[in-house]
Amino acid sequence: MPLVKSQDDIGEQLVRAVRDQSMQILDHDIIVVAQKIVSKAEGRVVDLQTVTPSTLANTIAESSEKDPKHVEVILRESANIIRMRGAHIIVETRHGFVCANAGVDRSNAGNGDLAVLLPIDPDRAAQKLRKRIRELAGVDVGVIISDTFGRAWRNGQVNVAIGIDGLTPIIDYRGSRDLFGNQLKVTQIAIADELASAAELVMRKSDGVPVAIIRGIAYAKGSGSVQQLIRPKEEDLFR
Amino acid sequence: MPLVKSQDDIGEQLVRAVRDQSMQILDHDIIVVAQKIVSKAEGRVVDLQTVTPSTLANTIAESSEKDPKHVEVILRESANIIRMRGAHIIVETRHGFVCANAGVDRSNAGNGDLAVLLPIDPDRAAQKLRKRIRELAGVDVGVIISDTFGRAWRNGQVNVAIGIDGLTPIIDYRGSRDLFGNQLKVTQIAIADELASAAELVMRKSDGVPVAIIRGIAYAKGSGSVQQLIRPKEEDLFR
Repeated sequence: MPLVKSQDDIGEQLVRAVRDQSMQILDHDIIVVAQKIVSKAEGRVVDLQTVTPSTLANTIAESSEKDPKHVEVILRESANIIRMRGAHIIVETRHGFVCANAGVDRSNAGNGDLAVLLPIDPDRAAQKLRKRIRELAGVDVGVIISDTFGRAWRNGQVNVAIGIDGLTPIIDYRGSRDLFGNQLKVTQIAIADELASAAELVMRKSDGVPVAIIRGIAYAKGSGSVQQLIRPKEEDLFR
Repeated sequence: MPLVKSQDDIGEQLVRAVRDQSMQILDHDIIVVAQKIVSKAEGRVVDLQTVTPSTLANTIAESSEKDPKHVEVILRESANIIRMRGAHIIVETRHGFVCANAGVDRSNAGNGDLAVLLPIDPDRAAQKLRKRIRELAGVDVGVIISDTFGRAWRNGQVNVAIGIDGLTPIIDYRGSRDLFGNQLKVTQIAIADELASAAELVMRKSDGVPVAIIRGIAYAKGSGSVQQLIRPKEEDLFR
């Protein structure tokens, strides 16, 4: 893939990159795309020099030892602050994701004064990309836009789905029976997140590989939305 | 793999099952093994008929609409209760994992009166298995014992590592530079959890496939421990 700029047609770039490597995209493949190139194509990049921090941003910046302009951008992307301590700012984004820094990232952005925000509507971005791949390559695929999020209780980040099209993100085994014919209890597997994590194993953040193709996996086609992966506030025990 | 019973040598069963399928285990493969067969081989199965619930277990059972004997076993496996609401009991296990029901599972246990507990020391179980595979197949692999855990904020469970040997569970990119030569900020990827999630895509809980082999992934060999994946209490914002 080339380095992505605002207004780029990443569907076209992706299909061409696959062809240039003498490969092809097949029906039923899952295409996992790093959030960063989707955001860049959407122009979701902010020059921090142009940002004027609010009083709140300045206060938070002081206690978190972050750049006030960076904090200001994080706050603009946030619906709620969930926790703050030390350098950690965990928020609920406008999309409903609970993550650090509202997903605002300063690395790989081109230079140190730029911040990349999450896509405006990652599901819609996934829909657009799926449609474009169908137009250009004639195949029906599942698309996952992914980002690396930290977790409660566990060290390290993992790749998760932040936008989806063409697949059902959760496999619901409730009501199924196990090997012994007993009903399975609570068993809903977040397959979209597992697919995103699997993809990260070959994407590797600092290598600049923004797309992975997963082939040979059984999944349920469907329109699907990342909203199905977000636990409703009223059922959430950890905010 | 055959159905696993107490005292079974799952290393031997695994190596034989691979041979029976005319395949082989290779150096540098990652072997992901479902917790349930490790627990069964360790005899970590409790007949709930033999359990006498404490007063606390009875009280919790009432508000959570769970079987008091099941709750009693959960409490015995727990170091701390982190949250309780409705049917949800989120605890810290004796190993330090934060998960629902202390990982105590009533499905696939043979019949409805049995509960399967997490292995006593999953890292040690991984070490044992790795050693056995080296003895029987002459290869050096990474071993991950996995279980499906729920997450804060997101619906659905994903497979994570609960025991490790032969690999470093976290890749630390801090200090690395991105495509533009900027230093990456916080970037530690929990590769062991991503590998466990990738494996789940072919293990599929109700299919009774308890082992997956991952081949062709670059990872850092090392003694590694699942403790590296557990965030220390004092750094954790969500308990």
